[in-house]
Amino acid sequence: MARLVMKFGGTSVADIERIRNVARHVKREVDAGHEVAVVVSAMSGKTNELVAWCRDASPMHDAREYDAVVASGEQVTSGLLAIVLQGMGITARSWQGWQLPLYTDGTHASARIKGLNGEELIKRFKERKEVAVIAGFQGINQETGRISTLGRGGSDTSAVAVAAAVHADRCDIYTDVDGVYTTDPRIVPKAQRLEAVAFEEMLEMASLGAKVLQVRSVELAMTQKVRLFVRSSFDAPDAPQVDNKGRPPGTLICDEEEIVENQIVTGIAFSKDEAQIALREVADKPGVAAAIFGPLAAAHINVDMIVQNVSADGKKTDITFTVPVAEFAKAKATIEKAKSKIGFASMEGYSDVVKVSVIGVGMRSHAGVAATAFRSLAEKGINIRVISTSEIKISILIDAAYTELAVRTLHSVYGLDG
Amino acid sequence: MARLVMKFGGTSVADIERIRNVARHVKREVDAGHEVAVVVSAMSGKTNELVAWCRDASPMHDAREYDAVVASGEQVTSGLLAIVLQGMGITARSWQGWQLPLYTDGTHASARIKGLNGEELIKRFKERKEVAVIAGFQGINQETGRISTLGRGGSDTSAVAVAAAVHADRCDIYTDVDGVYTTDPRIVPKAQRLEAVAFEEMLEMASLGAKVLQVRSVELAMTQKVRLFVRSSFDAPDAPQVDNKGRPPGTLICDEEEIVENQIVTGIAFSKDEAQIALREVADKPGVAAAIFGPLAAAHINVDMIVQNVSADGKKTDITFTVPVAEFAKAKATIEKAKSKIGFASMEGYSDVVKVSVIGVGMRSHAGVAATAFRSLAEKGINIRVISTSEIKISILIDAAYTELAVRTLHSVYGLDG
Repeated sequence: MARLVMKFGGTSVADIERIRNVARHVKREVDAGHEVAVVVSAMSGKTNELVAWCRDASPMHDAREYDAVVASGEQVTSGLLAIVLQGMGITARSWQGWQLPLYTDGTHASARIKGLNGEELIKRFKERKEVAVIAGFQGINQETGRISTLGRGGSDTSAVAVAAAVHADRCDIYTDVDGVYTTDPRIVPKAQRLEAVAFEEMLEMASLGAKVLQVRSVELAMTQKVRLFVRSSFDAPDAPQVDNKGRPPGTLICDEEEIVENQIVTGIAFSKDEAQIALREVADKPGVAAAIFGPLAAAHINVDMIVQNVSADGKKTDITFTVPVAEFAKAKATIEKAKSKIGFASMEGYSDVVKVSVIGVGMRSHAGVAATAFRSLAEKGINIRVISTSEIKISILIDAAYTELAVRTLHSVYGLDG
Repeated sequence: MARLVMKFGGTSVADIERIRNVARHVKREVDAGHEVAVVVSAMSGKTNELVAWCRDASPMHDAREYDAVVASGEQVTSGLLAIVLQGMGITARSWQGWQLPLYTDGTHASARIKGLNGEELIKRFKERKEVAVIAGFQGINQETGRISTLGRGGSDTSAVAVAAAVHADRCDIYTDVDGVYTTDPRIVPKAQRLEAVAFEEMLEMASLGAKVLQVRSVELAMTQKVRLFVRSSFDAPDAPQVDNKGRPPGTLICDEEEIVENQIVTGIAFSKDEAQIALREVADKPGVAAAIFGPLAAAHINVDMIVQNVSADGKKTDITFTVPVAEFAKAKATIEKAKSKIGFASMEGYSDVVKVSVIGVGMRSHAGVAATAFRSLAEKGINIRVISTSEIKISILIDAAYTELAVRTLHSVYGLDG
């Protein structure tokens, strides 16, 4: 007997037929004797519709009212799933965020979770064998009693919070992919589904554009030690719960120590959401970095990679950094405005670049991982624009035209091809 | 300065453009210095969609889950209207049933209101000039904390409850007609809009099929002494608030004593939702009425008019009664089943009948009102099947073919033609 949280996204509950399919997944776990809490998103498309109505009502809408409107989508699916489960003979009830209550701070439309007490849910698991069907994405502002929402993708975070509160053995995230892959299978057909990924690795992959899970939900899972299992909601609910190789039908995201055989490199991620800005002949003196990055921070522009070349004469240097593509124009304008304070000869910008990253907790204990990447890219004639590294990640900015070649080369050289 | 509750139904909030129109009505009252609470229904069609989903999820759905699902419609419109009002510069916030809280009993899907404290709303009227935008139709089960709904048309009842709780001077019901008429204008083009109707009269009209207001809302208004004003939401919000005769643009429903010039007859109502059952040669002995109406009550069939002819010989009698058309077949089957216990020669049924009613509180103090009705119908050759009377109403069952003739005749003979 285990205690499980099962989370289903919008495409999994898009209509009553799919909600029935979700219920069959739940029934399988209940029949196996498990205690189950289910967290559901709104029907796909519904949240977009509600958001559009709010925008139409007023472009400058009150986030508290926006939250009241958009939280209704999950309210509907939680009630409907409870009804379907009851129709299958399973004891179930729906819970709105304010009923649990899942308390949040006052940052409406992107609230952070402040607390959730799982005792009532646990009591009902034990006393009534009752399945909790929880409206994801929402909570209640602890100060004001107003409905709050956790931001797009927030149902993943709800699920992790529920799993932590009820001390669940696992939080199963049912989504439209069947797990986390070594890289994007559309680019590398030999990409492999990973059996297990460490939280830190998943965080790097998620923030680098592998959109399986909301970053915040992985962060919360890591700090709360909630084991996540990513799997497809389109698997037949009643089929044997293994893939065609006899392995579990998804990817476990867990503590590094739980993974017995760590690979040195777990995956190759890439992000096209990068633009590069280079400043030529900047004065190499104290305070110049602040003069550049202060105004960018003030404009809420998120700077990612930063490289400063050592100047030969100790007087002038080149500084290169990357920003999200959406902020590219704004970043250039901000720098241009601060030109007299910074002092540089010219500014060059490139948006046709991609950031390729090699990720793996095994790098911590293995030298030479970065050198392998640089050498193999050089052998393919791929020019490296910027490099940044962390303990478990090497990121390399290259021309976008080489994306596929670079990803395939790195995937192969680190032994990830099947 | 007055304190007003304004209630808008589903067609009035069907899309953002109509919600803007509602907001302009609210703005007019706010600009006039009034304190305002608004009660809104779901967008028209939305509740039907949610109900259909519940039925599709399971025909035997849990009423508590049904309530959680269908209450979401009003949540959406209350938030959207608050946003639009704020966009017009008006201080406003939405309130869900559970936030007020509007407490109900545990009869989910058709809950009754147990209590509502208006102090917080009044405080906000006074301290912030804040318009309360309240999700109609819903409350919270006082025992369990679950969302409850008040049944179809329940937003009218919500509005009256709010008006009572905040001691409103008036509760304005904005609907798709511009008031209560002396009879259906589609049948009698000379029908007049009434300036005022007593609660008791409105109750008779509502229960007789004049579907302007939910019966429960009028009952609650009568016991709570909430003055209702029925008017059209399609009136131009910014036009002068009088009709083309300089009168108020709707009908006031109020205490009898507030109406200075009571007419003897206020209106002619009719209901096609009637079927007649006649039992011939029933034994005229104690207990026979119980033998007939006991089984009907047990089958939840609502018997309306009952007539028992005095038997000439004191041994056999005819008993005639009416039931709703929807229960006609069930009623006949129920009687047939009890035939041996009742003892009658034959049963005759007619569904092609209509109940025409003459309504007016003035009847209490005026004799001869009924005689006028019988005489004028006889003059037109209309046969009376069944008669029943109350203090303020005479109801007459006739063949449906004579509906228009009877209504026009009575409308004219009581001086209601314009």
